[in-house]
Amino acid sequence: MRHSSIPSAQLVVQHCKAKRIKNIIISPGSRNAPLTIDFTEDPYFSCFSIVDERSAAFFALGIAQYLREPVAVVCTSGSALLNYYPAIAEAFYSGVPLVVISADRPVYKIDVGDGQTIRQDDVFHRHIGYSAPLKQDIVHATDRVEKYAPKWLEDDSEDALQKRIQQHNDSELNTALNVALKVKLPVHINVPFEEPLYDTALKPAAVPLVVPAETTEHPAITDIQIFVDVWDASERKMVLVGVNPPNAVEQRFLDQLAADPSVIVFTETTSNLHHPKFFASIDSILAPIEKRDNHEMLFEKLRPDILLTFGGLVVSKKIKAFLREYKPRHHWHIDALKAYDTFFALNHHFKMAANPFFQQFFPVVKSKSSDYFSYWNTVRNAYEEKRAAYFDSIPFSDMTAFKILLPGIPEGYQVQLANSSTVRYAQLFDLHPSLHVYCNRGTSGIDGCTSTAVGSSVYAENPTLLVTGDLSFFYDSNGLWNNYVRPDFRIILINNNGGGIFRILPGKEDTENFQRFFETVHQMDAEHLSKQFGFDYASASDEKSLKMELSEFYAASAHPKVLEVHTPRILNDKILLGYFDFISSDYH
Amino acid sequence: MRHSSIPSAQLVVQHCKAKRIKNIIISPGSRNAPLTIDFTEDPYFSCFSIVDERSAAFFALGIAQYLREPVAVVCTSGSALLNYYPAIAEAFYSGVPLVVISADRPVYKIDVGDGQTIRQDDVFHRHIGYSAPLKQDIVHATDRVEKYAPKWLEDDSEDALQKRIQQHNDSELNTALNVALKVKLPVHINVPFEEPLYDTALKPAAVPLVVPAETTEHPAITDIQIFVDVWDASERKMVLVGVNPPNAVEQRFLDQLAADPSVIVFTETTSNLHHPKFFASIDSILAPIEKRDNHEMLFEKLRPDILLTFGGLVVSKKIKAFLREYKPRHHWHIDALKAYDTFFALNHHFKMAANPFFQQFFPVVKSKSSDYFSYWNTVRNAYEEKRAAYFDSIPFSDMTAFKILLPGIPEGYQVQLANSSTVRYAQLFDLHPSLHVYCNRGTSGIDGCTSTAVGSSVYAENPTLLVTGDLSFFYDSNGLWNNYVRPDFRIILINNNGGGIFRILPGKEDTENFQRFFETVHQMDAEHLSKQFGFDYASASDEKSLKMELSEFYAASAHPKVLEVHTPRILNDKILLGYFDFISSDYH
Repeated sequence: MRHSSIPSAQLVVQHCKAKRIKNIIISPGSRNAPLTIDFTEDPYFSCFSIVDERSAAFFALGIAQYLREPVAVVCTSGSALLNYYPAIAEAFYSGVPLVVISADRPVYKIDVGDGQTIRQDDVFHRHIGYSAPLKQDIVHATDRVEKYAPKWLEDDSEDALQKRIQQHNDSELNTALNVALKVKLPVHINVPFEEPLYDTALKPAAVPLVVPAETTEHPAITDIQIFVDVWDASERKMVLVGVNPPNAVEQRFLDQLAADPSVIVFTETTSNLHHPKFFASIDSILAPIEKRDNHEMLFEKLRPDILLTFGGLVVSKKIKAFLREYKPRHHWHIDALKAYDTFFALNHHFKMAANPFFQQFFPVVKSKSSDYFSYWNTVRNAYEEKRAAYFDSIPFSDMTAFKILLPGIPEGYQVQLANSSTVRYAQLFDLHPSLHVYCNRGTSGIDGCTSTAVGSSVYAENPTLLVTGDLSFFYDSNGLWNNYVRPDFRIILINNNGGGIFRILPGKEDTENFQRFFETVHQMDAEHLSKQFGFDYASASDEKSLKMELSEFYAASAHPKVLEVHTPRILNDKILLGYFDFISSDYH
Repeated sequence: MRHSSIPSAQLVVQHCKAKRIKNIIISPGSRNAPLTIDFTEDPYFSCFSIVDERSAAFFALGIAQYLREPVAVVCTSGSALLNYYPAIAEAFYSGVPLVVISADRPVYKIDVGDGQTIRQDDVFHRHIGYSAPLKQDIVHATDRVEKYAPKWLEDDSEDALQKRIQQHNDSELNTALNVALKVKLPVHINVPFEEPLYDTALKPAAVPLVVPAETTEHPAITDIQIFVDVWDASERKMVLVGVNPPNAVEQRFLDQLAADPSVIVFTETTSNLHHPKFFASIDSILAPIEKRDNHEMLFEKLRPDILLTFGGLVVSKKIKAFLREYKPRHHWHIDALKAYDTFFALNHHFKMAANPFFQQFFPVVKSKSSDYFSYWNTVRNAYEEKRAAYFDSIPFSDMTAFKILLPGIPEGYQVQLANSSTVRYAQLFDLHPSLHVYCNRGTSGIDGCTSTAVGSSVYAENPTLLVTGDLSFFYDSNGLWNNYVRPDFRIILINNNGGGIFRILPGKEDTENFQRFFETVHQMDAEHLSKQFGFDYASASDEKSLKMELSEFYAASAHPKVLEVHTPRILNDKILLGYFDFISSDYH
C-alpha cells in the first residue's frame, strides 16, 4: 500500500481510520493529492468521487444521516471549500457529524496573489463544532517556514520541531474528530501542504497518537421526583416530536404515551413515529381553530400544562406560533446534546436520549384521567372525514398529486422530502408507518435535497424515493452528477412551473413583479436533465396519467427513474387554503 | 410607486439608489420580500431574478466586472446566503465590489429552532470588505425586542428608539456602500425583518442620510527622484501585468515601454494589453530555460533589476516560481488600492492607477541602452517559429482545438475564459488585440465561470464567447438557468471527458484511482443540457468538423449556441508537455 510521503496527510487519514470514519467523499484537485492518495489506497475506506463540492457535502450528509456516523469530505484549496458551507450549516443545525477536510497552501502563500488560495482557517466560524488548523510538516517546509513559526525555530532542531508539529496535529485531530463523534457537529480540519504533492512512500512515517472519544453514558434524571409530581398533577400534556430518525424510540413507550388520556402526541412525517392515537397532521388541528371567532377559548383549551419535546426541528409554523403565544407552563426537552428554546418557555433540558428518559420516567409516573385527548380526538375525527370529502371535490393540483402519490409509495421505502412545498404538503397526509422519512430541516434549504437523497440511498437496505418540487430539483441538479445513483432510485418531481408556495403567503399581490421575483415562473421540464444523467423519464399531468405511471414506477429497472407531475401553476394556493377553510366549516 | 412598509427595507434601497447602485440580482424568498418589493417597484433599478444563489452571485460579479461598478445581490434568510460565498471570495481577491444584501430573521429567533435561520451576522468574516449588521425597526418589533436591545429601551420612547435605529442603519449603510465604491471590495449588509413582510405603503417613511464616498484623487509619486535614479541606472526592467481590464492603460505609455531596449513586458491574455514587442506567452520563454543544463545562467540573464507590476493576479506559475527564486533587486507594484508581495520581494507600492503613474514617471526617466529586450526577443522569435512547426505536427487534441478556435474569434468579442485548462492553454497563443478577455482569477475556481460569463454579457456592446472545459461547464450548468442569456451568447466547450489537466501534473501515476479521484473521467456530453436551457447545439471531434462548425458558429441566430469539441482524453498531457520539449530543442 502506498502512502503520501507527507506525514500530516498520513496522520489525518490514520486518525480517521482509528476513529472508524469509513466513508470519504473526495472532490478532484491537486493540493489535496496527498490526502486522496492515502484515503484511496487504503481498502479500509469507501471513497466516493464527486466534482461539485456543494453537492459532495450534501451527499456526505445523506450518508451520515442514514448511517448515523461521521462522514468526511475532502477538497482542494480555494473556493472549493466554500461550496461546502450550505451543507455544513445544515449539518450544524441537524446535528450531523460532517468531517470537512481541506487541503491548503502553506501559510506564507496566503494573500500574496497565488491562485486557488484563500483564508481557509476558521472560515466556517459561525457554524462549526470545531476548527482544527493543522501545521505543515517541517520536513516538507521551505526556507520560508520562519515566516509563520519563528518562535519554534529559535531553539529547536528540525527533528524536534517536526515532533512538536506532529504532537500539535495529533491533538487537533483528536479534538476535532471527537467533537464529530460525541457532539455530533460538523468539524473542519485544514491541512497545509507544500509541493511536491504526489510523492509516495511504502511505509507511513507517522504513528498517530489516538485519544478515543469518551463514551457518553445515559445519566440518571436528577431530582426526578420534582418532574414526576408535575407530570402526575397535569391534566394536559402535549408531546411534540421534531425530526427524528426511524426506530429511535421503543414502541412500548409510544404505547404508554398513547394510553394516557391526559396526553396528546403531535408528530410530523419527519418524526418517524406512528400510533393510531397520535396526531399526524398538526396544521389540520390548528388551522380550523384560527378561523373561529372563539379561537382564544379553543387555543386555551389546547394549551398544555406540560410540553414535552424531543427530536430536531419542527416543520409546522402554526404549532410554533400557537405555543409561543399560548405558552405551556412547563416545557421540557429531551436530547442528549442540545435544547432549543423554540417557544421561549423552556424550563428543563433532560440531557439524554428519549429511550433512557422514558425508561426512567414511565415506571414512576401515573396515568391521569382527563378529557384532553378525547376532546381533540373528536376534532381530529371530524377533519379526517372532511378531508376525504374535500379531496374528492378538487381538480388536479399539487394536493391531488400528493394524495395519490403518498399512499402509493411501496412499504419500507426510504422517502426523502425536499424542502419548501413538498415537506409541507406531506404533513397533511398519513404516511405508512413502514416508511423512513427524511428531510433537511436544519436550515430547511432547497439547495441540497437531491444530493442528500442520493447520498442517503447508497447504503439503504431499501430503495429511496425523493419527492421534490421544480425549483429544488433544478437548483440541485448536480446532485445527479455522480456514479452512485442506484437503479432503484426514484424521483417524483411536482412541477408547478415555479415557486408556487409563494402564492400562498399572506399579503402578496399577483403582479408581474410577483411572478418574476417571488414565484420565478418558468416553463422548464425535467426531460433533458433526466436524460443527461441517465434516468428513465415519464410524465403525468392529470389523475389518470399519474395513476397509470405510478403503476409501473416502482418496478425493478435498469436505470433510475424520474416521474414528473405537471400541475397547474395558479390553482394550488387556492386549493390549499380552501382545504383549511373546508375542514373548518361547521367546526363544533 | 409602492414601498415596503418596513423602514429599514426602504433605507437599504434608497441608499443603493443614492450611491448609483443600479443592478440588483434577486433570488426568490419570503423573508427578503420587503427588499424585493422596493427594488422592483422603483424603475431606477434593473432587477434580475436568479434562483440558485451561487450562480446569482457570479452573475452579479460578471456585471460588476464589465461595468466596473458595484452590483447588489439580494437573498432570503438561511443557507441561501451561504451559497454566495464562492463568488464573494472571488470578488474579494479580484477587487470586485459585490454588495451582498441578506434578509434575516429577528435576532431573538436565531438558534431557537426556526427554519431557514442561521447565524448570518459577519458570516463572511475572512473575505469581506465590511459587514454591516442593520438593526430591526422598533415599529415592526414584537414584545421580544428587549431580548436584544435592553439598554436602548431603558430610557427611550419608541420614537426616539426608532430614530436611533435609523441613525445606526444609515451609518452602517454609508460605511458598507462606501467601502464597495472606494475600496472595491465585497460588502455584506444583513437586515433583520419581523413579519408581516408583504405590507406596503405609498410613501417611504424613512429619509436616508447619505454620506457620499470620497472621490479618490491620484496622488503624486512621493520621492520620485529616488525611483527615477534606480530606473535610469537599471539595464534590466521587467514589466509584468496580471488581470487588467480592457483599455485601462493608454497606448502611448505602452509604446514608451516597448521602445526602451532595457525593458521587457510580459503579458497574459487576461492583461488585455497588446504591442508587437510584448511577450504574450510567458511559459514559452520560461519552460525551455528550465530544460537547459545552463538554466541557472539563463535565469540569471533574465533576472530583472527592477520588476514593475500592475494589474491583478498572474496566471503563469512558472513566472512566479522564477521570480521567487531569482528575486528582482526591486519590485514595485502600481495599484490604487493593494499590493500583494507575490514574489516575496516587494519594495514599493505606488498607490495609484497605472496611467497616472506613467504620466508622472515617463517624462522624467530616460531610455537605457541594453541588450535585455533584444536577447529575449531573439529567443521569442525562435520559439514562435518552432511553435508553428509543432502545431503542424500534432494530432487533434486540446491544443489543436485552441489553435483553431482562438484565431477564429470575431474581432471585438468579449471572451470569458473558464479556469483550469482553458485559461492556461489560452496563454500559449496570441489573441487578437480587439478582444476583451476576462477570467475569474481571484480564487481561480471553476465554480462560477459560466454564470460570470452570462452576467458579463448582459450589458456588453459586443457578443460574448465563453471558452470552457467539461468539468467547469457541468459544475456551473445553473449559470444557464436564467432568462438573461442573449441570442448572440456563444459557448465553446472543450470536452476531454474529465479533468485532463491533472494528467499533466508531475508525480502522478495513471492508475484506476487516479482516473476516478483526480481526473474524474466521465462520458457525458452537453447536448441534453444545451437543449434544457434553450441553446442550439453542435459538436466537432476533428479538425475538419471543428473548422466547418466554426464557419457558421458566430452568425446571427435566434438562440444562443454551444459548440462542443470532443478531444481525446489521453493524448493532451503528452502533447502539451511535448510542446515545451519541442520549442526547447536546439535552444541556443
